Amino acid sequence: MSKIGKLFGIGVGPGDPELITKKAIRVINEADVIFTAASTKNNYSLALEIADPYISNNTDIQSLSFPMIKDKIESAKAWNTNAEKIASILKQGKNAAFITLGDPVTYSTFGYILMAMEKVMPQADIEIVPGITSFHAAAARCNKILVEAEETLAVMSGAYGGENIRAIAEKVDKIAIVKAYKNTKDINKALKETGFYKKSIAISRCGRDGEEIIDNIDDLEKRKPDYWTLILAGK
Amino acid sequence: MSKIGKLFGIGVGPGDPELITKKAIRVINEADVIFTAASTKNNYSLALEIADPYISNNTDIQSLSFPMIKDKIESAKAWNTNAEKIASILKQGKNAAFITLGDPVTYSTFGYILMAMEKVMPQADIEIVPGITSFHAAAARCNKILVEAEETLAVMSGAYGGENIRAIAEKVDKIAIVKAYKNTKDINKALKETGFYKKSIAISRCGRDGEEIIDNIDDLEKRKPDYWTLILAGK
Repeated sequence: MSKIGKLFGIGVGPGDPELITKKAIRVINEADVIFTAASTKNNYSLALEIADPYISNNTDIQSLSFPMIKDKIESAKAWNTNAEKIASILKQGKNAAFITLGDPVTYSTFGYILMAMEKVMPQADIEIVPGITSFHAAAARCNKILVEAEETLAVMSGAYGGENIRAIAEKVDKIAIVKAYKNTKDINKALKETGFYKKSIAISRCGRDGEEIIDNIDDLEKRKPDYWTLILAGK
Repeated sequence: MSKIGKLFGIGVGPGDPELITKKAIRVINEADVIFTAASTKNNYSLALEIADPYISNNTDIQSLSFPMIKDKIESAKAWNTNAEKIASILKQGKNAAFITLGDPVTYSTFGYILMAMEKVMPQADIEIVPGITSFHAAAARCNKILVEAEETLAVMSGAYGGENIRAIAEKVDKIAIVKAYKNTKDINKALKETGFYKKSIAISRCGRDGEEIIDNIDDLEKRKPDYWTLILAGK
């Protein structure tokens, strides 16, 4: 029987090209095929830009279409198709690396790949290389302690506006809200109601071109919404 | 007026020497003085071991004593003394790098340095270089999605046993419990009560010598407690 390849899920970090790990660099360099997710909505080519200096000349680069479909069945089908493309590479004995911004298991498209691979090729050998997340980079950028001693940190999506903040605020000391680009009025209202407003800060495109630190989160309500915005808040 | 140096807070990652970032390597290499925290309780020399290949020959390495003191006033005094040592280096125009395992703003001794520096030398120029946290490394090691889509993740200390878990469980989808080495019986009980037990896993010394994956968290109650143990749980 011929050798089966291995799939690596690689986090290239939050956007600053220097925040990639040594391991990610090595695995990208050794990969036979690099997979990226393509989407018209978000800029996934940034992950490729960060990885580019380490990709060998003879490495094949393939883009997988990222389905921005609300329908769960249609979406799962599209991910299965992507997983089948990866599986066919592994079955040729080649190693594949799926690169993703941030960390592969933190709000990442690689999560969908991981779930689809379980169905399509459950015996696949998969290794994940963690990456620096956007909220860690943002806390570092703002010289802000993310969580300390016996504190509890909640990491959430801004998709539900203030609802999740109100539900959890009493029980946690720090909150990181990713994708804080919609419902910002309700998010800010909830942070004010729960005592998290005073020690809050927002950052957009941290460590990347167009980075903006928004000291007063009220300003989020007036600016053009940017998907790559997050809020760090504390009591 | 002579030049004032800069302080860098550097995360060298969770223990696997390959999980250090390019930026951490560069800054360690360029530093005039490397500071580490020394403690009899925990093994801070591991951070130095990871950084060692990148430290220049003429770099001065200084160990700061980490006070494991419950008394807040005594503890703050000791950190002020440490911050004064760092400040005196910066005032000589030298750059200093304080290295820490994991990430400098996530349950890290650097948090105390940051607070003490604000008192001792509020004008200091401080830059933080984020590192991969233990819980990100653990999720990657176990091929486990840490948090996805619109889910909420709670990151907490195991110090309070099951208390914090019970308080928060209903409102979150995933839980990461660091320092899960004490009160493990109550932690497990709380995870069972709240529906987080079935999808739980523990890992000790992730990516380091003596790494252990504990598939059944009940086993934590029987093993010798290890400070570097964490639990990942989901509904």
